[in-house]
Amino acid sequence: MKVGCYQFSPIRHDLRSNRALIAETARNSNLDLIVFPELACSGYTFASREELLACSETRDGESTQLFQSISDASGTTIITGFAELDEQTGLIYNSAVCTRAGMKPLVYRKAHLFNTEKEFFTCGDTRFFTCTTHETTIGMLICFDHMFPEAARTLALQGASLICHPSNLVLEGYAQLTTRVRAMENHVFWILANRVGTEGPLTFTGSSQIIDPTGKLLSQAGRDSCGLYTAEFDPDRAANKYITRSNDLFADRRTDLYRI
Amino acid sequence: MKVGCYQFSPIRHDLRSNRALIAETARNSNLDLIVFPELACSGYTFASREELLACSETRDGESTQLFQSISDASGTTIITGFAELDEQTGLIYNSAVCTRAGMKPLVYRKAHLFNTEKEFFTCGDTRFFTCTTHETTIGMLICFDHMFPEAARTLALQGASLICHPSNLVLEGYAQLTTRVRAMENHVFWILANRVGTEGPLTFTGSSQIIDPTGKLLSQAGRDSCGLYTAEFDPDRAANKYITRSNDLFADRRTDLYRI
Repeated sequence: MKVGCYQFSPIRHDLRSNRALIAETARNSNLDLIVFPELACSGYTFASREELLACSETRDGESTQLFQSISDASGTTIITGFAELDEQTGLIYNSAVCTRAGMKPLVYRKAHLFNTEKEFFTCGDTRFFTCTTHETTIGMLICFDHMFPEAARTLALQGASLICHPSNLVLEGYAQLTTRVRAMENHVFWILANRVGTEGPLTFTGSSQIIDPTGKLLSQAGRDSCGLYTAEFDPDRAANKYITRSNDLFADRRTDLYRI
Repeated sequence: MKVGCYQFSPIRHDLRSNRALIAETARNSNLDLIVFPELACSGYTFASREELLACSETRDGESTQLFQSISDASGTTIITGFAELDEQTGLIYNSAVCTRAGMKPLVYRKAHLFNTEKEFFTCGDTRFFTCTTHETTIGMLICFDHMFPEAARTLALQGASLICHPSNLVLEGYAQLTTRVRAMENHVFWILANRVGTEGPLTFTGSSQIIDPTGKLLSQAGRDSCGLYTAEFDPDRAANKYITRSNDLFADRRTDLYRI
């Protein structure tokens, strides 16, 4: 499986430009799967709910339609963050959409909102779910979800071999560490797609990374660099949870003793 | 709170010498709490159940009595690994004992056994529990327990501010990474007391560490060095789970969405 993450600095509130760059990058990637950062279509900061509303799209909006058409034509699965307006309720979610060739788009709504996101976004109500692409079971998380081991565990127990993780990280070094441990403790592959650049007082920390089930970095972006970072691996390596001859990481779980 | 971990190479199957070294180190430490490695009294490897049985002690055996007397006289809380024989059942556990001044000794039995430990030891049946010392709530884990985020989470949700973690680590770099993340994701202090030296084909990886709730190393031992590593901190820092103005790591948990 050939995968990648694209690290860049989205232009704040310029959906048309960001969408075009994502589309062109995915179209030319020749990858099975590519992951873009959180809120890659809209940028990260909003001064008001009105400003966020103007940058939001429905789950079948222009961005999704464009990415779906590229997935259909190229076979590349695309995962990217966007601000999602639920037209029925008027609520706005920090979401990621996954488009796969010939399949319906799937949307994950961020469960754990970070800091000021709570002002305008609503906490996700989708469960943590998996889907299949290129014969591989994958799951999505967004940014701060990484701090809660239960989120990745829920996906891994549903059979995810690869976790795709659009992010806009601002805490230096946190997620670069936790995602390696999430990969190790669940014995899965992981793609952390972070952004770079600044918005107001926030500086995003780059260092996107692709991780194997032993926590080894298969690819890592620089702190400030823009570009496509790729890796190739056999996702079946994640199906086998044995890390020693006697230790299956899932069979060894002591669910009789956990109180969480 | 003044704490420490003692990194050394126990003499294989020489309970008398190991016990004496642990006792002397604890007695002279002038610490509130000190943690020794896993199976620090007995050494790690056993060729047969008989060999292990000869190195095992009951929970109120000679080692516990000696450490309790030192805790009573010095006020130092001592946590150390030992091979525990349950006289009623004849089963042997990979355990840690905690002695506190004027209190009954408490024993934790390792829940997640590693590799060949499964041949002679029985999986722990004590739950993950906390206790109080020097006005601080602490919990114990042993070595491979670190790979299962549910174990530390269970202790933290019971109010542990400090997790004491006797270990005999052989997988290079794994636990040094996971324990930093466990400290971060639960916002607790952590003392990883590992051993050094070799037994047969096994080389133990040292690098014991004391970690603060942000994942920062307050003290770290070398890969091969022996000695006492200490730190001083305010355990109340772990009581506050806010990592941003809007994010309480426990209140933010989405237990409605976890399926673990």
